[in-house]
Amino acid sequence: MLTKAPHLFDDATRVTAGDSRWQGRTSDDYWAFVGPFGGATAATILRALIDHPERAGTPLALTVNYCAPIAAGTFDLDLRLVKANRSSQHWCVELTQNGGEVATLATAVFAERRPSWSHQPAPFPPARPFEQIRPFPRIAATWANQYDFRFIEGDPDFSGTSPQSEPVSAYSRLWIGDRVPRKIDMLSLMSMSDAFFGRVFHARRQMLPFGTVSLTTYFHADAEDLAAENTSRVLAVADAKIFHRSYGDQNGELWSPNGRLLATTTQIAYFKA
Amino acid sequence: MLTKAPHLFDDATRVTAGDSRWQGRTSDDYWAFVGPFGGATAATILRALIDHPERAGTPLALTVNYCAPIAAGTFDLDLRLVKANRSSQHWCVELTQNGGEVATLATAVFAERRPSWSHQPAPFPPARPFEQIRPFPRIAATWANQYDFRFIEGDPDFSGTSPQSEPVSAYSRLWIGDRVPRKIDMLSLMSMSDAFFGRVFHARRQMLPFGTVSLTTYFHADAEDLAAENTSRVLAVADAKIFHRSYGDQNGELWSPNGRLLATTTQIAYFKA
Repeated sequence: MLTKAPHLFDDATRVTAGDSRWQGRTSDDYWAFVGPFGGATAATILRALIDHPERAGTPLALTVNYCAPIAAGTFDLDLRLVKANRSSQHWCVELTQNGGEVATLATAVFAERRPSWSHQPAPFPPARPFEQIRPFPRIAATWANQYDFRFIEGDPDFSGTSPQSEPVSAYSRLWIGDRVPRKIDMLSLMSMSDAFFGRVFHARRQMLPFGTVSLTTYFHADAEDLAAENTSRVLAVADAKIFHRSYGDQNGELWSPNGRLLATTTQIAYFKA
Repeated sequence: MLTKAPHLFDDATRVTAGDSRWQGRTSDDYWAFVGPFGGATAATILRALIDHPERAGTPLALTVNYCAPIAAGTFDLDLRLVKANRSSQHWCVELTQNGGEVATLATAVFAERRPSWSHQPAPFPPARPFEQIRPFPRIAATWANQYDFRFIEGDPDFSGTSPQSEPVSAYSRLWIGDRVPRKIDMLSLMSMSDAFFGRVFHARRQMLPFGTVSLTTYFHADAEDLAAENTSRVLAVADAKIFHRSYGDQNGELWSPNGRLLATTTQIAYFKA
């Protein structure tokens, strides 16, 4: 009998149900420099919510505040349905370790998305085909190696800038897929919304101490829309507007190859420079 | 003796301190169609946090989830410092009425913003001078009349579209000041980040059932920066990327007249169309 090994991403975001408290575990496969990849943490939180027996509707918005580094090992997820009405649910999630120390604080909105007038004013970014672009090489952070990044514009270049040189553009446009292909679902969209290199790395052409502080992602497709797209990659764009007093922003879009805007995302991140 | 009446905005966002539970009151002067103006609610939450004796640092990020309409009258604010470290604080706020029903759920990040490399890649939007533009006329929602809106581009036009007609642009560029001038501070920035008309009103040229579900604002200036700007108005831009299955997004920027990006904001909102 052939059994299929679970995808590493499904392993990394695995949760065990409890009553109100669930449990998860960090993954060495999705590790950043000082803790787990924030996208994997966000996806794990979303997975617990989606799997929760009281959950109704489809994810609409998730905000994740990274309060402290998560240590390697297990963590608890405390999921609380703060308010529910006919068409939406509001959740609050605390990720704790060491018997109650909060490492991550999140809020989520789920909604029954009814048919409506539909209009997508955002322009679909132009892109060379995925197959025609060389994958971005492996780097020291394991999380990045779980992804197949193919840059169309704004390839990272960590050759450094001199203090005199002008900052370069923080804009990137790239295909993102799982290194081992996996169909795009809400969980991978959530994770990929954090799967950009720090904008400050691009602007300064160097790696620097960096950490996402708060991440917000909006979903513009429901499960049915995603199933119809039936794709294992997204066309992603990210940019920054400002770096000031140790914090910088990032805003991004995740598109299906067919030109549907699946998610928008924004974050504010600490940097040292 | 001359006494100066407090500004209506300061009245509307007034909070009374308790131990962990604070109290506020909705304002008829900042009323939308089915409840208080979301920007005033967000600013009230921010004010309670700023005034809290345990608060350290300057506001960096505020996410407000509007869970249910707030009834006219008093409400409680439950402020909880979830995590603090040397340089940042993470807060969770619940606004409740009727003995505990949550109407609004918010998370906030405060930070000590240390000097750093600074770079503002976002282009300062072109604008005719405030004084040369006619104020937008008064409308039925009282909150809007507390602001002096001067549109440079994308004036609201509620003359309606036929089902056959093409949607119009959701982009707006305008000056926003308080109708009775008031110096821009963190509270007014927070409120003004929600002081755009629904993007769907612009795209469809009509008012529709509409409500912000989740709002996130990042502050790119600290109190010292704001004091240096010393202004009573911002240059604001807002746009939308998608309207789909009853929800649409909005993203915006608030600029000082001198060309400093003070805040960026995004929200997802329900609409019926």
